[in-house]
Amino acid sequence: MADELVLYSNPMSRGRIARWMLEEVGIPYRTEMLDFGVMKSPDYLAINPMGKVPAIKHNGTIVTECAAVCAYLADVFPHAKLAPPLPERGDYYRWLFFASGPLEYAASNRALGFEPPAERQAMMGYGNYNMTLDTLEYAVSANPFIAGNTFSAADVYVGSHIAWGMQFGTIEKRPAFEAYWKKLEHRPAHIRATELDDAAMPAKA
Amino acid sequence: MADELVLYSNPMSRGRIARWMLEEVGIPYRTEMLDFGVMKSPDYLAINPMGKVPAIKHNGTIVTECAAVCAYLADVFPHAKLAPPLPERGDYYRWLFFASGPLEYAASNRALGFEPPAERQAMMGYGNYNMTLDTLEYAVSANPFIAGNTFSAADVYVGSHIAWGMQFGTIEKRPAFEAYWKKLEHRPAHIRATELDDAAMPAKA
Repeated sequence: MADELVLYSNPMSRGRIARWMLEEVGIPYRTEMLDFGVMKSPDYLAINPMGKVPAIKHNGTIVTECAAVCAYLADVFPHAKLAPPLPERGDYYRWLFFASGPLEYAASNRALGFEPPAERQAMMGYGNYNMTLDTLEYAVSANPFIAGNTFSAADVYVGSHIAWGMQFGTIEKRPAFEAYWKKLEHRPAHIRATELDDAAMPAKA
Repeated sequence: MADELVLYSNPMSRGRIARWMLEEVGIPYRTEMLDFGVMKSPDYLAINPMGKVPAIKHNGTIVTECAAVCAYLADVFPHAKLAPPLPERGDYYRWLFFASGPLEYAASNRALGFEPPAERQAMMGYGNYNMTLDTLEYAVSANPFIAGNTFSAADVYVGSHIAWGMQFGTIEKRPAFEAYWKKLEHRPAHIRATELDDAAMPAKA
């Protein structure tokens, strides 16, 4: 099918973010759930040489990196109004790139017990964990949504990070984070996406 | 001035990438060079709570995160043709987010001597350093430029990472990286930006 849109995912991965975004867009798509072993197979490495999900394939275009999937879908399906007009994307890009870079790696390194030594923090894109969380708090508190007055793809992405981070303990449960997530978690698209991914979880033995 | 565009930078920082981007766009801007100490002052933290450069201020909009600055400027100044049309941004976003996330942190962690243990690499956005560099090689080899047949803001960003990484030893000098950089380094905007930042370097004692 020329117009086919495929989501490569796993219900225990950041693929849940891409699923939520697809449900916000509201177009038909097909899901291929991959085991973590299959992600390292030659067939899938041809789609994403990083050997990870999510990825999407849309009319022959492959997009990987979860934040890129969100930004791409918002632009390709403008009817969903999930990206600001081009001249007004300052906050939109700012916080998408902040969450996919400094926030993601400050939280991941902390989860692995690694904090850059003080004298090397200037060369690290995120400096240190506390400064990164303070910046995140500034971001979610400045406006009703992360890119201004309107919900956007950047909220799908940043919101997912905050929800997951608080759940798994890599992001502190600050009141500002909880208040922000309360504005997002009941969106119908998020509920649908969660139900679909929960149903795809492997059965417990 | 309503239309003023200010670059906050330091010649020994990723601010060089933003400068190159501004020179590609070709609009007037004013540069404020900040010492690393000043970046932690309350005045500057009001601009970027991360306490780092680059940042830009444009008509009251503040943009931080170097890749976001590139993406924002490409959209706000479409005459420069530095971003693909909205329906064709798959590779553009994919490699911008890849370079600002996995590539940046795989290289930074390696520079600090930290490699995630094998059993924890699945939770790390970049998996491991070698897979990240293999993916970068795939990215720069697939098309004449990183987002297709045409030079774009993504080349400013990815190209700068590759050039700096090879110079400082955080990215291996692979032939594909050197061939890609050869296509970029002689661009007039890159030469102008380099001269301006070199001239702003502190004098050696």
